[in-house]
Amino acid sequence: MAERVEEVSNKQVILRDYVSGFPKESDFELRTSKIRLNAAQGSKSVVVKNLYLSCDPYMRNRMRNSIGSFTPGSPITGYGVARVIGSEHPNVKIGDLVWGTTGWEEYSLITEPETLFKIEHTDVPLSYYTGILGMPGMTAYGGFYEVGSPKEGEYVFVSAASGAVGQLVGQFAKLKNCYVVGSAGSKEKVDLLKDKFGFDEAFNYKEEPDLDKALKRCLPDGIDIYFENVGGKMLDMVLLNMRLHGRIPVCGMSSQYNLEEREGAHNLFCLITKRIRMEGFTAFDYYPMYPKYLDMVLPLIREGKITYVEDIAEGLENAPAALIGLFSGRNIGKQVVLVARE
Amino acid sequence: MAERVEEVSNKQVILRDYVSGFPKESDFELRTSKIRLNAAQGSKSVVVKNLYLSCDPYMRNRMRNSIGSFTPGSPITGYGVARVIGSEHPNVKIGDLVWGTTGWEEYSLITEPETLFKIEHTDVPLSYYTGILGMPGMTAYGGFYEVGSPKEGEYVFVSAASGAVGQLVGQFAKLKNCYVVGSAGSKEKVDLLKDKFGFDEAFNYKEEPDLDKALKRCLPDGIDIYFENVGGKMLDMVLLNMRLHGRIPVCGMSSQYNLEEREGAHNLFCLITKRIRMEGFTAFDYYPMYPKYLDMVLPLIREGKITYVEDIAEGLENAPAALIGLFSGRNIGKQVVLVARE
Repeated sequence: MAERVEEVSNKQVILRDYVSGFPKESDFELRTSKIRLNAAQGSKSVVVKNLYLSCDPYMRNRMRNSIGSFTPGSPITGYGVARVIGSEHPNVKIGDLVWGTTGWEEYSLITEPETLFKIEHTDVPLSYYTGILGMPGMTAYGGFYEVGSPKEGEYVFVSAASGAVGQLVGQFAKLKNCYVVGSAGSKEKVDLLKDKFGFDEAFNYKEEPDLDKALKRCLPDGIDIYFENVGGKMLDMVLLNMRLHGRIPVCGMSSQYNLEEREGAHNLFCLITKRIRMEGFTAFDYYPMYPKYLDMVLPLIREGKITYVEDIAEGLENAPAALIGLFSGRNIGKQVVLVARE
Repeated sequence: MAERVEEVSNKQVILRDYVSGFPKESDFELRTSKIRLNAAQGSKSVVVKNLYLSCDPYMRNRMRNSIGSFTPGSPITGYGVARVIGSEHPNVKIGDLVWGTTGWEEYSLITEPETLFKIEHTDVPLSYYTGILGMPGMTAYGGFYEVGSPKEGEYVFVSAASGAVGQLVGQFAKLKNCYVVGSAGSKEKVDLLKDKFGFDEAFNYKEEPDLDKALKRCLPDGIDIYFENVGGKMLDMVLLNMRLHGRIPVCGMSSQYNLEEREGAHNLFCLITKRIRMEGFTAFDYYPMYPKYLDMVLPLIREGKITYVEDIAEGLENAPAALIGLFSGRNIGKQVVLVARE
């Protein structure tokens, strides 16, 4: 009997061309293509129905013409939550919920399903697997606990603090009895930091004519751990305010992503005088610790000891605007795109 | 019976005023003062006769008007080797040889002799206690072994490689079976690196129009450990050439010391993509390991397995020129000033 091949229309978000400067909605287009819902026999591939897509700052660098960039003319890719609807892989079953790298489209053929994480816990919002229970969660976990080596009572500063990662770092730091200060780009975000995430202090960097003064006001005794999300001027001013043997987990430098020429860091000499350790990392490095992380964080979510704010855009047609909104700070909390309710 | 007080003339090197830009000989003056050769009874102080003074790049920062600066109108201070000629301290005896912080003068009153290290081994040149057996030695030791965490066979790059610290780092790295490349500022120094210190490769940074290309030529597989002595453009180009999980012990940034406005580091984003650890340190942090270091390094010196090149200026009157020569790279090897043969 011949294989039954079901082909359906597939809405996709296409990158038109490499982007310089701030990305615009017109750098993307929506296209409707077709896709077979069965993976080819013997291919070890799977076909998924995408439910949630994740908008992450690192995606800006993939819009540039460099290693690992998106392919102009093709749908972009990123983290997402999806339901398996076709499988030729022995370890993946139809009906499984997964998170991992998928396409910005309604349905995706995934040729390396080994890279997907199977979702076992569905008593929490599925969208969390693009955030607190996904890559941003592992970023905050690895960066704060492993790279940051926090000690009780230390002074912690987080930039982009209301974002997907920052809001978690701040809450992890509070759970560790640290004094936590965050910066963000609007009054609404600053209020969120203090009222919802329990930051001890917060400031709107756009309203501070002198970041050095803002840091000294909020952290008069200096900073033990700076969780670096933004780079640029903020990093330079933080270096002046670090304490002896401070640590700077370098997670991102989002202030630099849309610049053709990066700003320089001028105060690196502070690394010597204060014996600072500055260390870059990515979530991937900590993926082997994911089960351990879930054991820690799931009870905290269930008991309401940790909270997670998402900004959910509905529909693939709104995905480009949601993605580029990240770079002007339009989102409040983790930016997600809902592609389909099941 | 009244205390016998012997007062002698004391030639001193005075900083006239704070220095901006490149220091000049005229920023210093020689003055002859008087000093009592007895420490005041009950003072716990000692009086020393200075034998060797150490010229070190960090001293440039002390010529600036900032915390820890020299006092204009007074003799400058630094590391030196000296003989104790008067002591009111129970643990320091007349005749002891010591190294530590002393004045740039013939005789110094030292009010905190606890900071001095007693010299126990005199079968090696005494001047070595300003270099391989003193602060620069501990800098190379702590920076390379502790901060750098070297593994056999790794690729190591050292800037200012023929200097007081760099020549040691290169030799330590060779003893660890690393592949070692150094940069220096003249053909003579580059030859020294290859012929005397056993560097696998070396280049004259002043003759390289493109430092990125020079690094790629000498280290086509990239750099695991960059021992950072110079900062500026070199750091930026090294960042592009670091390997995954590379380490950058930050010892100094001498290219920046004479600039009123520091150059920026523009390639810090590489910290993330390559998971680089960049960590500042100073020798002081490792002084508790000094006995362990001596146990390691003294046999290496005695067996000729490690060598140390010094550039010795004779006489206090030549001390200012020797010191400022550091900042134009005039010295070949560790710059020392011989104040007195005993």
